[in-house]
Amino acid sequence: MRSEYVEAVADAVDAADSARLKQLTEDVYGADLADLIGALTPARRTDFVRLLGPDFDFGVLIELDDSVRLALIEELPPATVAEGISELDSDDAVYLIEDLDAADQGAILDRMPSAERLSIERSLDYPEESAGRLMQTDFIAVPPFWTVGQTIDYCRETADLPDDFYEIHVVDPTYRLVGVVPLDRLLRSKRPVGISDLVEEEGFVVRADQDREEVARLFERHNLISLPVVDDGRRLVGVVTADDVVDVVKEEAEEDFRAMHGVGDEELSSSVMYTTRNRFLWLFVNLLTAFLAASVIGAFEDTIAKIVALAALAPIVAGQGGNAATQTMTVAVRALGTRELGRLNLKRFVTREIMVSLINGLAFAVIVGLIVWAWYQDPRLGFVIGGAMVGNLVAGGLAGVAIPLAVEKVGGDPAVISGVFVTTVTDCVGFFAVLGLATWWFGLM
Amino acid sequence: MRSEYVEAVADAVDAADSARLKQLTEDVYGADLADLIGALTPARRTDFVRLLGPDFDFGVLIELDDSVRLALIEELPPATVAEGISELDSDDAVYLIEDLDAADQGAILDRMPSAERLSIERSLDYPEESAGRLMQTDFIAVPPFWTVGQTIDYCRETADLPDDFYEIHVVDPTYRLVGVVPLDRLLRSKRPVGISDLVEEEGFVVRADQDREEVARLFERHNLISLPVVDDGRRLVGVVTADDVVDVVKEEAEEDFRAMHGVGDEELSSSVMYTTRNRFLWLFVNLLTAFLAASVIGAFEDTIAKIVALAALAPIVAGQGGNAATQTMTVAVRALGTRELGRLNLKRFVTREIMVSLINGLAFAVIVGLIVWAWYQDPRLGFVIGGAMVGNLVAGGLAGVAIPLAVEKVGGDPAVISGVFVTTVTDCVGFFAVLGLATWWFGLM
Repeated sequence: MRSEYVEAVADAVDAADSARLKQLTEDVYGADLADLIGALTPARRTDFVRLLGPDFDFGVLIELDDSVRLALIEELPPATVAEGISELDSDDAVYLIEDLDAADQGAILDRMPSAERLSIERSLDYPEESAGRLMQTDFIAVPPFWTVGQTIDYCRETADLPDDFYEIHVVDPTYRLVGVVPLDRLLRSKRPVGISDLVEEEGFVVRADQDREEVARLFERHNLISLPVVDDGRRLVGVVTADDVVDVVKEEAEEDFRAMHGVGDEELSSSVMYTTRNRFLWLFVNLLTAFLAASVIGAFEDTIAKIVALAALAPIVAGQGGNAATQTMTVAVRALGTRELGRLNLKRFVTREIMVSLINGLAFAVIVGLIVWAWYQDPRLGFVIGGAMVGNLVAGGLAGVAIPLAVEKVGGDPAVISGVFVTTVTDCVGFFAVLGLATWWFGLM
Repeated sequence: MRSEYVEAVADAVDAADSARLKQLTEDVYGADLADLIGALTPARRTDFVRLLGPDFDFGVLIELDDSVRLALIEELPPATVAEGISELDSDDAVYLIEDLDAADQGAILDRMPSAERLSIERSLDYPEESAGRLMQTDFIAVPPFWTVGQTIDYCRETADLPDDFYEIHVVDPTYRLVGVVPLDRLLRSKRPVGISDLVEEEGFVVRADQDREEVARLFERHNLISLPVVDDGRRLVGVVTADDVVDVVKEEAEEDFRAMHGVGDEELSSSVMYTTRNRFLWLFVNLLTAFLAASVIGAFEDTIAKIVALAALAPIVAGQGGNAATQTMTVAVRALGTRELGRLNLKRFVTREIMVSLINGLAFAVIVGLIVWAWYQDPRLGFVIGGAMVGNLVAGGLAGVAIPLAVEKVGGDPAVISGVFVTTVTDCVGFFAVLGLATWWFGLM
């Protein structure tokens, strides 16, 4: 998207020229329209939507950054939002208003047609990040005693079908899910064939209150396109489709890593203040642990005063241990997040990580030891740094596995907290090993 | 999955008891079966597949870790693999054999029925990680002058349809893609309606040689379920569906972060030697930069000898700068990877990052300055550390933005290389700022 185009749109908004605006935007895809809105100033965003009026597809807002979307929807009149989201599938409508505060949400819902309102309210009753929030509540359900012909006729004659659907759901008289019939299967069968002959009863199902991460994992593992959602009584309440899951999978994969670096849920469009606050806490905690490491060094001031070279060499050992430990931790955190690491492969993984740490520790001990020996013309200094290197990489490997596992065990999120502990271990062990070994060997105490 | 179950299966394999094995595995889902195979020893994995014979669904192998799958397929007789993958959709068959070496691949392809072989070979002709490798070559294509009735009859009468499909493709006599008709649209329409009245001509399309990352981005941005793949002449050659894209999205999201920590493409099941080698290079490069930072410290040995406290305090400034810079870099690398960062928002992002660095730099300067002043009872030491802290956080913020952008500009992968440069900057600037400021202020040179 070129900036001249954005400027042309901004000019049309400023001139309140809705005809020109319609002309500029009519052939633009939803996601590109979202980019355009994101590039406008906040005041122009509201005007943009107002000027387009009923021609504006609220589905576009889904692709905006969360903070931009929230601010924009709060600015728009509730009646406009109510009208706009009534046109959408229920899952998209829910996505747009679920993060509003209760009063704003109520004002919008009150202005919606009752059928749409009810289905949105039903979704909102389920917990955040659950299958119930992700599902679409429009679906096609038929009884098992119908035929293919009856079902096709029903689809032809019913006006109010969902926008897109990929299977027919089969339910009993109490709306309990019997199974599904994929559309292609329906299409391959002759009209007199009974639905009960086509139905797949053994398929996957999720409960509406299940976490969306579990839903995403089912899609991933079993290559699904759509998945029925049921309530506690196995009554069909909605459908989740793969296009919704693509976004969940991406967000969940990124979440762990973002947490590891203390950038949490900020977005590219987040403000300076939000971003600063968001990052501050993580940096502050890391600062405290840095003082812990500094106090280890402080305890050996006499040694450093006598062998100043140690001040330059100890950070190498601490840093290398931190890097190696972070590698192990990255793998462990992600494997816990995706549930790939479990009882079956835990022992093998821990053994491997210790072996890898040991081998790389020995390799770097030799490399660093020789460099230091040559640099300072003192074999003892080489041995001190080399010995400390092995010790710190092994300690880091252990910490990189054990800390995420322990955090998970006590119910914490390994991605958020492990990093701080792991680098504390490698800093403290690294400094202590170098300075302690030197003090002992050079007989400085 | 319980380890008793794995043991029971292992016993059945050792006893070559295929009846028992069939009984143990017949109700197990593909992905769970893959977990089971992964938990067996390599020798038992081959026997497991051999013993199940034609009852074994080769689609299960898709869920295995790459290295496990590759080793297993290489161990199996080519005829067995050929038979097994002939049953699969072409995209799955391609996925299973694309990483084999040419000789093994040829041995398998030679033993396949020619129709299946040809469609696999066609996919393999496209570059790795392209849409052509991801696509399924079975699809339904009809001419625009057909009616809904003719199309439905065709689906009913043709035996060799793809396993699952979600739309009908409309092509002209030279097989050029005219557009698609989603199955639900077909089902809603009466038999005499013409296909040309239903066809969506404006839909998204990818070229077979496009990168799978671009394909995934299209699915994500436009919430697609399936996407036609065409060749250079816009002739329809295949279809990519959302279930394949879910895996791509996850892998691509993880790839950047794994690269940032130097754990590349290793898997949980990778061997000790592979993992060690895989991580060594990244650690080695980081080690070289650590020596660079050490040489900065080494240049100030006289200063440290006089104020030993600096040996404990300088790493705090270097570390804090590294952490803050990594936050900026994480956001920048990922935003470049997803193409979210572009000309439209670059200036805003850079300004924000500098502001955030400055504000957090000032905040931590005050905090650390006061602590150091109180700790060492020397205000000058507090000012030195505080001043160095601001400088290093701002330098880190600049480096965290500029380095990924520069790496991207020259065609490198920002995720792989940025980290090394960024922490080199914060280490060197941090140490230099602390020790240089101290030397100057305390008049030590």
